This record gives sequence, structure tokens and C-alpha cells, in this order.
Amino acid sequence: MPKSKLTRDDLRRAAEKYKNWGKWGATDEVGTLNYTQPEDIIAAARLVKKGKVISLALNFDQHGPQGAKSKYPSLGRINPLHVMLRTGTDAYSGVLDHRGIRAADDIVVMPLQSGTQWDGLGHVFYENNMWNGYDCREVTSTGANKCGIEKTKNRMVGRGVFLDVARVQRTEALDDGYAITGEDLERTAAAHGVRVKRGDFVIVRTGQMEAKLAAGNWDGYPGGDAPGFSFETLDWIQDHEIAAIASDTWGCEVRPNESEAGINQPWHWITIPIMGLTMGEIFFVADLASDCAADNVYEFLFVAPAIPITGAVGSPTNPLAIK
Amino acid sequence: MPKSKLTRDDLRRAAEKYKNWGKWGATDEVGTLNYTQPEDIIAAARLVKKGKVISLALNFDQHGPQGAKSKYPSLGRINPLHVMLRTGTDAYSGVLDHRGIRAADDIVVMPLQSGTQWDGLGHVFYENNMWNGYDCREVTSTGANKCGIEKTKNRMVGRGVFLDVARVQRTEALDDGYAITGEDLERTAAAHGVRVKRGDFVIVRTGQMEAKLAAGNWDGYPGGDAPGFSFETLDWIQDHEIAAIASDTWGCEVRPNESEAGINQPWHWITIPIMGLTMGEIFFVADLASDCAADNVYEFLFVAPAIPITGAVGSPTNPLAIK
Amino acid sequence: MPKSKLTRDDLRRAAEKYKNWGKWGATDEVGTLNYTQPEDIIAAARLVKKGKVISLALNFDQHGPQGAKSKYPSLGRINPLHVMLRTGTDAYSGVLDHRGIRAADDIVVMPLQSGTQWDGLGHVFYENNMWNGYDCREVTSTGANKCGIEKTKNRMVGRGVFLDVARVQRTEALDDGYAITGEDLERTAAAHGVRVKRGDFVIVRTGQMEAKLAAGNWDGYPGGDAPGFSFETLDWIQDHEIAAIASDTWGCEVRPNESEAGINQPWHWITIPIMGLTMGEIFFVADLASDCAADNVYEFLFVAPAIPITGAVGSPTNPLAIK
Amino acid sequence: MPKSKLTRDDLRRAAEKYKNWGKWGATDEVGTLNYTQPEDIIAAARLVKKGKVISLALNFDQHGPQGAKSKYPSLGRINPLHVMLRTGTDAYSGVLDHRGIRAADDIVVMPLQSGTQWDGLGHVFYENNMWNGYDCREVTSTGANKCGIEKTKNRMVGRGVFLDVARVQRTEALDDGYAITGEDLERTAAAHGVRVKRGDFVIVRTGQMEAKLAAGNWDGYPGGDAPGFSFETLDWIQDHEIAAIASDTWGCEVRPNESEAGINQPWHWITIPIMGLTMGEIFFVADLASDCAADNVYEFLFVAPAIPITGAVGSPTNPLAIK
Repeated sequence: MPKSKLTRDDLRRAAEKYKNWGKWGATDEVGTLNYTQPEDIIAAARLVKKGKVISLALNFDQHGPQGAKSKYPSLGRINPLHVMLRTGTDAYSGVLDHRGIRAADDIVVMPLQSGTQWDGLGHVFYENNMWNGYDCREVTSTGANKCGIEKTKNRMVGRGVFLDVARVQRTEALDDGYAITGEDLERTAAAHGVRVKRGDFVIVRTGQMEAKLAAGNWDGYPGGDAPGFSFETLDWIQDHEIAAIASDTWGCEVRPNESEAGINQPWHWITIPIMGLTMGEIFFVADLASDCAADNVYEFLFVAPAIPITGAVGSPTNPLAIK
Repeated sequence: MPKSKLTRDDLRRAAEKYKNWGKWGATDEVGTLNYTQPEDIIAAARLVKKGKVISLALNFDQHGPQGAKSKYPSLGRINPLHVMLRTGTDAYSGVLDHRGIRAADDIVVMPLQSGTQWDGLGHVFYENNMWNGYDCREVTSTGANKCGIEKTKNRMVGRGVFLDVARVQRTEALDDGYAITGEDLERTAAAHGVRVKRGDFVIVRTGQMEAKLAAGNWDGYPGGDAPGFSFETLDWIQDHEIAAIASDTWGCEVRPNESEAGINQPWHWITIPIMGLTMGEIFFVADLASDCAADNVYEFLFVAPAIPITGAVGSPTNPLAIK
Repeated sequence: MPKSKLTRDDLRRAAEKYKNWGKWGATDEVGTLNYTQPEDIIAAARLVKKGKVISLALNFDQHGPQGAKSKYPSLGRINPLHVMLRTGTDAYSGVLDHRGIRAADDIVVMPLQSGTQWDGLGHVFYENNMWNGYDCREVTSTGANKCGIEKTKNRMVGRGVFLDVARVQRTEALDDGYAITGEDLERTAAAHGVRVKRGDFVIVRTGQMEAKLAAGNWDGYPGGDAPGFSFETLDWIQDHEIAAIASDTWGCEVRPNESEAGINQPWHWITIPIMGLTMGEIFFVADLASDCAADNVYEFLFVAPAIPITGAVGSPTNPLAIK
Repeated sequence: MPKSKLTRDDLRRAAEKYKNWGKWGATDEVGTLNYTQPEDIIAAARLVKKGKVISLALNFDQHGPQGAKSKYPSLGRINPLHVMLRTGTDAYSGVLDHRGIRAADDIVVMPLQSGTQWDGLGHVFYENNMWNGYDCREVTSTGANKCGIEKTKNRMVGRGVFLDVARVQRTEALDDGYAITGEDLERTAAAHGVRVKRGDFVIVRTGQMEAKLAAGNWDGYPGGDAPGFSFETLDWIQDHEIAAIASDTWGCEVRPNESEAGINQPWHWITIPIMGLTMGEIFFVADLASDCAADNVYEFLFVAPAIPITGAVGSPTNPLAIK
């Protein structure tokens, strides 16, 4: 953690340093997902050797993390509300038979960032701009006219690399407030015998989610203190030209934040609007962690399609590690 | 199309003939998805040769097919309603700055079968039973206690085979009411130089969706007349031991149905509750069709994870063909 | 509280004793609201002497009682989720100007019994029947075909009588578990100088809500222990031929219930389906209590229209006491 | 209809002329509802002579006007979506019995202006201001910090006056595009033998809704051409110091609008943000029209409470005329 707290000037300098605007053309809307090239996808598919599929999604239901106690206001993020439109009890009661079919149906009311999810590039603004320099007013009450999550619909495929930082540090879970550094990531990769490279999808385990699940209580998880990425990982991310990064915490970056008062989630200020980095949050990595620990293989084919909701600034996803 | 209309007795006989209950044990909840084995996934991954990802999802928005005119009542299936919880215009207006971050957020109200979707095994009942013989009362207003879509969370991966029936029949779109037979499927596969085998995910193109998109109007699509699977394809499906089947229509099977009055979607009566067959509907296959026509390769790695909403009887999906 | 706990046999006897089925004809769907006659409305209007309107509604928002800790499962009852469809920040940002009008708009996702509300006659069943003997299967996933709240659309007007039981008992709030008896109600009315009569809307104050509001915490309110109506008030209710009854608690009747294990809300088993009694819950009565204490007038014109949502089994309401 | 179309300059002049900002103090949030005084409510209650309650609400369901064809984009206004959380079929199926009570429950997803409704004072802005001069940025994605509909919770009570313009003009429905003038309103009142006065709630019938209902089709209703208030009624409204005005059309004012291109709903530009006038739309007045025609009494007690959803810019209502 830096000795002195990050100031707005620090952020301004970081914005200049890490700015990828224009890198993939003036009309690009997917940012670092461009790093993944067809040859990377081909190579990633070659990593499938066991035929095993591991889901990195929490189930979406009332047991999710939203609504837990936290100092952070939820602002409308509830757990998904799944409601039936027709049921098997309707069927049993005979009230569907006039339709000639006994069928159930359902609907969900779901904040797009209520569970395992992608932050789209319309999610965070830097001053009045979003990714690639678009005006933040492109995201109105009707949705994101630029950088909507639907633009990623055929992009979330590549090599996945799992970095089990907690395991390498021989702890069940990193402490809240622990700021993961680029060096931590490098050391973890080295311990796993993998090298992160251009176009990869990097998934990082802090162990925090498993600790909350073991406790049977999400209090403190949504927006509370957490281990997570240090601001200085921006260097590591930029250098490695990764496609996306994800973690098992609510918000990827370390909390309390490394910034002075009035600056919330400074790492997000840079990653999304300035670098164009798609981020995954609330990833459930326990099963993946066990499997990788068992076979000592920390790379795999990663497929985590967003639901292409037009103009959305995030999306639930069921990310799959295929080994 | 059969000379005589299917009766309840015909369905009863079909239910006996195609019943897979117990085939994967008394507690199975995913049915024919069990056909796909690890070696099939490994082999499917080997099909990735171009590093090209093709999405089979329609975008989810107000331009979807729900609400179009149709003789079929929608019963609560609306197009997804995407609403912003915070916006870039909030950011621009300065009203987010007290939070220390300028971020947008959003929510969706989405019938789970409103767009490109999987029918889960809790979706259709045969009399008082669901797949594997479970009591239909397992699907209550609180959701599906058995066969919820979340049970498939690491299952929707395997070899995809695309059968472009319309193309092989040299038409832009099959006529409404055209009943695709098992022979049609075989002939299409042969023309494409592929063989469907155990554990495959079969995606069939009728061309109907593209015709509606070209017309700029979904009228007649949701529940209206359509080309689709004949009841007799049950033989072909059972014989080939496929994992799942999907199509570009609203409801997979031919409409008007081949059944007498009072029996709606007879093929569904058998496929879902009796065979345990997961089905995909409203798949957007135009891009896949072009690509396959161009390279003449009709097989690929198919990854189409459901969003694991606990107790859901269906799920939106962004199915990916990876070639 | 009764010495012995209410059994199913007790409920069966009560069902016979209090059954009003058929009293207003075989097709009636509003039950005791029929007690209020035109002359009662005329007389009630004469009670307006100060021209003062007092709302008995809590505001509907995220500060409502749903989601508070309770031993009772919420089963989908969340606080109302109010989301904007267009905003003043959109206006300020200029993004609405192409429409030629700067206007905001909004939407709510609201369980109908999430705040101040009426229980409709489709809300509770006695065995397989609802009010007036209708089959409970009239309430399907598509809503209540019988006794929907819309049937009351011009009924919720009459003489209101406020019974401040807590005040008369010289306490800020009755204790949790305190069972209000018919004698308590009589004694309260006598202390207030009012007599309850046919067709009245009776509003009862326990003080519990104000205690929760004062504590700044709803824990225990939704479904937790509470003061409330004793089962024996059924006699008082039936004898007085009241139109409806309401209270400031979550569920009107005393909790823990007076019944043996396995019988939840025994008073509800009788009031709604057997007597046809409409009930108000989560009424905010603090302002009314102050006003009545000040002028010692405990009767008024009461107008509390339900929102006529077709087939609904309850409705939010903004009940008005007009004095 | 004016000879020349209204320009922005005309609106600017009107804004100066009709501006009521500050009239009820700098912190007022309810505008012309202030005109209604206690003595008006007392007098209004005296109008109750028959004890008859007439609802002016359409039922809220899938048969409402939203989604009908119109040149006007609906922008998220759907008909209310009413979904059950528990049902009588659940009860019948026995799946609720573990809870000890057989009860149904429900939820609604409802745009606040989807049916019979009040436009709150946060609904329309004039340039960057809302009613009383508040900054339009007070209405953010979290709702209206000023002039939320909840501020009216004890205000919607007073004398109602019904002006059946269609009837007095001896037509079933005024023509689309017919601009009702102040003189029309005066003439109608005279024909009915009533005089509109300070603090009244004025309800105006064009007949358009009944024509749509008779046709069994809402096409053209939501935002299409319609009879309605002429811009010049602003004089009449201001002079009469009415509390609120309502009509049976989608948007009160005449359509096509009397303004030049680029100015949509010019009357709204002035009524809501400049005058502070609350407005009712989509009022169902057929029953009231019949009753008034029969007894020739066009005044009554009017009670139409909004549901006090915090920060809402509108609200569904079940307005009651009590005669």
C-alpha cells in the first residue's frame, strides 16, 4: 500500500499514463478485449485436456450478497427476484389444461451487477468521459449508446489463467485491506508455473468469498472492506496486455481504498474508462481453486459470455473454465 | 406431416416409447445433457481451428419478438425491460460526485424465455410429472425444486453441429407449417458432410427468424405458425442420443401442431418431461449460417451456459459457436 | 391469551360459526364491504368538520419494513424498488431535447403487500376454498379470477373509527404477544366516546410501528412477534358487522399466534376466507393518533381506495382520514 | 387552435406570465394543490348526498393502453405486469402447508404513468428548472429529491367538478386535434349549472377513451392524436385557481400540439414546472358521466390519493367521485 493516499492529481497522472483511447480506433467499444486474437483462442482450446467444465458463477437467488450489511449504499442492487409466471402447481390444479399444454414459465428482476458479473465499459466514467473518450452523456436513462455490454457478445473467449494468491500466500483468505501488488501476481503465477500473456483472462482468488460463504453471512461483502488489487497493479495489467481481469470479491480492488477522502474505487477510475479493461466481479472460484490445486494446471479455455442486453453497462454471466 | 392428427393415445404411446426416466439414476435432474462426456468436450475443443467466435444470441431489448401479434397469448412474456439505476447523465450533472465515483448501473426485468433461451427440464410437464418422474408440484411459485436451470451450470459445453435445413432445401426459409423430419435432418447432415453423434448439441436453421428480421416485424413469430420439428423426429433424437437441440424459431416444433384440438406442442410433451431433452429456442443463426456456408465446416465447439438462476425453468443464454 | 392453544378442530368450529358465505349472494366478491351502505357514506361525510386530511400510509421506499430481520421468511416481499425511466439529469444533459420535452418518468417493482396495504379476499384460503366458497384454484399464476382487489374499486369509503388501544392502556406500545380482545376494543371505544357500528372501517393502534420507527430499525416487524388481535375478536367483529379492520402491525393478529404448531395466523384463516373481511396492515397511525388525542374526535370520513390491479390479492393504499 | 404555431418565444412569454414560483414560499413542493383550503374540503364533504362512490380508474392490467400502436415512443411504459408470488393452485397442491397458512401473494411491475395516474411536479422541466424554480438535477436516477409525489399524500381531497365537454357539444367524442378552449370549459360549466372556483379539482371528458374502449383497441391513444386542452386554457386555469385538472386522454393537451416542430406538449411545459399544476391523465370517466347526466349534479367530493412512492414523479391512483 502506498505511504501516501492517492490524490486527484495522482489519478490525473495515471489517466495520462494508462490511457488506451484510440488504440483500437476511434470507434472501438470493447477496449482490451481486442488483445485476444484468433490464434489465442485456438491455443486456448488446446488447453482442454480433461473435458472438465467448471462454473465460476454463484447461483442467482435470494441467497446472494446483495442486501447484506455494509457501509456502502446498495442503491437499488437487490438480489435477483425470480418469480413464476406459471407453475407445476397450476398444472396439478388443472388450470392450464385449456391451453393444451402443462408448462411453467418465469421472470427475473435482476440488477445486472447483483451477482457474478462483468463490468462493461459503460459502467464507470472518468470525469465526463467513458472508454475511448466517448462523452459520458452517451449513457442515459435509455441505456448506453456506446460501449453497451452487447458489443462484447462474441468476445469473452480466450485463455484463462487462475492466480490463487491466497493459496500461494498460504492463507485461507487474504485480509481485508490487503492490497495485491503486481509483484504478488507475478509471484503467484510463478508458483503456479504459468506466465500471463497478451489477451489472457486473469482470474484472481483472494479467498474472501469462500470465507463469507463459510460464515453463512455476506455482511461486509458488498462494498465493505476487502482484499483486492492495489492501484499499482495498473502497471502489471498494462504491461501484460490482458483482455480482462476478475476476482472473487465484490469490487476487485482493495478496500478501504488507497485514496484520499472523496475518491472511491480509484483503480476503477482508470481501468474501465481509461484503459478499456472489462472486469469480472463476484466470481465463485472455490471449485476452480480445488481443481487447479489438484492437477497443478492453472490455465484453461475460458468462456464467459455476457447476456447481450442492449445498452447494458454490466451483465450477469456464468463463466466457464474448461480444462 | 402425418395423415391423421396426433391424439392423446398417440402421446401416451410415445411417452412409453421414449421415456428416459431413471436412465441416469433416480436423482438425475439434467437428462440428455448426460450424454456429453469429457472425451466429447476434449474432441469438441479440437474443432477450434480459426479462433472465431460466433454468437447465436439476439440482443435482448425492446426490439425482441415478444409483444408481436400472434394468435398465442403471451401470458406475461414481455421483451426485456432494461432500466438504468444510475447514468452518465447523472455523472455529467454532478449528482454522483458525493459518492466519489462516477458510475452507471442497471437492472433488467426479463421473462426467462423472452429471447434466445434454453427451456429447462422444469418447463413442461407430462400430466402430473416432470422429467425423471418428479411430481409437477415440485415447481411451485417459489420455483423449481427439481430440475432448476442452475443444475445445468457446467453442462452446456460440447460439440455443436449446425444443420442448415433451409439452405440444403435451397430456400431462404422453410414455409410455416413445414414439418422437419428425421430424414430431413439426416439429409442435411449428409449434405454438410457431418454426422450427428452421442452428446452433440444440434442447432437447426429454418430461416424463419431471418425472414422476420428482414421484414422488420415479428408478427406471427411468438406462437404463430412456423416451420419446425415433426413429432416423428423423436425417433431421430432418441437414436442419436443428442445432448440438446435448438432452433431459430419461437418454439422448435412445427406449428400448426400435428395434433388434434386440445393438444398444444405435442413434441414438447415428450421431449422435455419424458426424454429429458434440453431445448434452445429463438437462436439467431444467420451469422453461423454464413460462416458455415463459407468454410463448409458445420461442426464446432459449442458453449452456451445458462445463467444459473436457482429454480428457474428456463434461461436466457448467449450461445457461442467457436470454430 | 387462551389457556389452551387453538387446534384445527377449533378452527373448524370457528369456520362454521363465522361463515358468511352466501350472505350477499352466491356471486359476491367483496364480503363485509357490503355492510357499508349509501346512508353510512352520507353520514360519514358529515363528520368532516375541520377540513383536515391525515394520511395513514408509510411512504413506499427502501426504508420500508421488508427485508428486516425476522424469523418469518419474506418469500419475495421486498421493499418497493422505484427506478427512473428518465430523469432531470437527462434533461440537464440535453439528451431529451430531441423529444421536444424535458420530462422524467419512472417505474416501480412493488410486492402488493410490501407496505401500507389491503389484504384482498383472494389472499387467504381455508382449505380449498376462498371467500364465499369459491375454489382456491381460482387464484392461479395469472391472478385471482374471483375476489380480485379490483372488485373493491368503489368500496373503500365509509365511517372510520380509530381505536387507540395503546393510548387507552397508557402505554407507548402494547407488548409483543399482547392479544387484543373484543373487550379491549369496547373499552377503547368507550374511552374515546365512540360506538362502532355496522359498515364502519375500524383502525386500531398498538403503537408497535411507532416503536420500530423510533428505534430506526424494523427488525422483528415483518412476521415477528407483535401485539395484535386475539382470535376471540372474531365475535366482536362479527357482532359489529364492520366493513374492514386495519392496524399498525405487519399482520393484524397477535404473534406468537394463539394456535398450536402448524397453524400460522389462525385469525386470518377465518377473517378473510370465512367472514369475507378485508383487512388493512402496516397502517401508519401516528399522525391520526395525535390528532384524535388533541380534539378527542375518533370518528371521521375514511377513504382508502385500493389500486385496482386486476386479479390482485392485495393492494398498496394511501388511506385518508378526513376530519 | 391558434393561427400561428407556438414558438419557443411564445413559451418564454407564457412562462413569465403564468409563473407561480414562490407563491407558496420558496420551499413549496405541491404548487396549486395549495389552493384547496380546509373550508373547501368541509364544503366538498357536504356535497355527498347519495352516498354513491364512483371510481375514475381503469383497471390496471395487460388490457391497458400501453403498447398500443402510436407514433410516440413508449420509452419503457408497459402495461402493469402483475405476477403472483404464491397462488391458490399452490394451496390446492399442498405445497404451502408447511407454512401453516394457505395464502396467495403478488407483485407488480408498473410504470407509474401506465394507467390512470397523476403527473407529479417532478415530471416535467422547463429548461433546467422544475416547479418553484428547483434545479432539474434534483431528479436523478435515485428519484425526485424535490416535488416527489409523496409530498401530496394528504392533498388530493377537495371539491370535484366534472365538465363533460363532449356531452355539451352533443358528440360522443371530440375529434382528435380538437383544442378545448377556456370558453369551452366555461360554456360546459354553465350548461351543467356549476361554477369552477378556487381549489377545485376539475375533470374533463373528451370521450376519447370511451371511443377506444368501444373499438376494443387502444391504437393511437398513447401519444397519438387526441382532443385536449388548448394552450390558451392556461389563462382559464390560472384565473380559476384550480387545484388540479384531469382528463380521459393520455396526455390532457390537444395533439397534434399547437406548437412548431421541436416543441412537444407545450401546455405541459407551462402547467407543471411553471404553474405547479398537478395533472391527472387516463381517467376513466364513463361511469361518472352517466351518473352526472342522470342527476344533473356535476360537483362532488373528490378523493384521489397518490400512492406515496418516495421520489416518484407520478403515481397510479384510483380517483373517487363521492356524490
